[in-house]
Amino acid sequence: MDLFDAIYRRRDVREFGNDEIPQETLLKILNAAHHAGSVGLMQPWNFTVIRSCETQSAIADIVAEENNKAAVNYTGEERDKYLSLHLEAIHSAPINIAVTCDSQRGGPHVAGRNTMPETDLYSTCCAIQNLWLAARAEGVGMCWVSLIDPERVKQIIGIPADIKLVGYLCLGVPESFDDRPHLERQGWKTRTPLEDILFFESWGHQQMMDSSDTESPSLIKRGVTSP
Amino acid sequence: MDLFDAIYRRRDVREFGNDEIPQETLLKILNAAHHAGSVGLMQPWNFTVIRSCETQSAIADIVAEENNKAAVNYTGEERDKYLSLHLEAIHSAPINIAVTCDSQRGGPHVAGRNTMPETDLYSTCCAIQNLWLAARAEGVGMCWVSLIDPERVKQIIGIPADIKLVGYLCLGVPESFDDRPHLERQGWKTRTPLEDILFFESWGHQQMMDSSDTESPSLIKRGVTSP
Repeated sequence: MDLFDAIYRRRDVREFGNDEIPQETLLKILNAAHHAGSVGLMQPWNFTVIRSCETQSAIADIVAEENNKAAVNYTGEERDKYLSLHLEAIHSAPINIAVTCDSQRGGPHVAGRNTMPETDLYSTCCAIQNLWLAARAEGVGMCWVSLIDPERVKQIIGIPADIKLVGYLCLGVPESFDDRPHLERQGWKTRTPLEDILFFESWGHQQMMDSSDTESPSLIKRGVTSP
Repeated sequence: MDLFDAIYRRRDVREFGNDEIPQETLLKILNAAHHAGSVGLMQPWNFTVIRSCETQSAIADIVAEENNKAAVNYTGEERDKYLSLHLEAIHSAPINIAVTCDSQRGGPHVAGRNTMPETDLYSTCCAIQNLWLAARAEGVGMCWVSLIDPERVKQIIGIPADIKLVGYLCLGVPESFDDRPHLERQGWKTRTPLEDILFFESWGHQQMMDSSDTESPSLIKRGVTSP
């Protein structure tokens, strides 16, 4: 699949069909994740693949609890809407993957990590994005479940205290991929226009400062169409 | 470009030629970044595109200072090697992009962000990985410069105190893309085999627990070849 197709057609998928993910497909997806860039080639990630129904159920229970806690932040219609959002897909996903980050990997001095130690986490997220795109290209859907209590999930999987759980991912084969993000279809949020989040030269300046092209601001609208 | 080609051929590029990046190419790359998934469709990122030589020079000075500080962590030959690593590319890159994260975007309650507030940063990193891959597909090289003092860089660009600088990126057109990571070619680090970072069912278990396939551990070697 073309890269841009994968980027624009990637979705946070919450409903899966009954098809299994072939072992070789899973490994292809994980290998793509493993080829993300990382600060100082630190490769701080681990992927723990979970197929056990028992483990998945224990984690789904945690998500349900946390979802109920989060619902308290909303009232009335908004609360009903929130509770209908269907924010996880653990039960219907044949494979879960816990993505973790080991901050100690590579020893005390990792080239390039001196001033921003959190770049180990950032590298791990780059790996997750690779995984997400690779899954999409292979016809596999993924849901990143963030409504978890990471410490309780770590206990269930046996992840050591000093290892950070970055992402809990559910993978499965969906019947189809939606054309728009789940939360947009549900009327919860919409995508911001690119030009609203783009600045030039300094914070807040939304006009391109390119004297050779006085028409450049409109290029933002002309140059790119969002599929 | 095929997604997997983009993933495997993506590099942290530190040397650029003299070609400019066309405006429409830049916007195509930024739009791909903007189409990353984000927790609760929060889209917490901003991209500040910096072409000004003055701004780039001021930031390059900060990187040089931080690089000298980091070199203190090494001695003898290792120190010489470290100093030869060429960890940034600000001066030779026609375009720099500061990628920031606004933790307040989307209001106090973002769907799915209740228990892991740091997912705003994670979403921003997914956008950076999209940007990196999209650049690669367009023949544009990118270097993620992490050896910065983020607070000083924020001051130069005018980024408000409550906005987090996640990545400072340098983009340009390289004469070629290397076949291996920069730090691997320099003899600094090598890529870990996938099977070393892969666990099954629980932390530390390196054998696939799939009773229907007793040969599965070797699939890791058979199923995937790293380009």
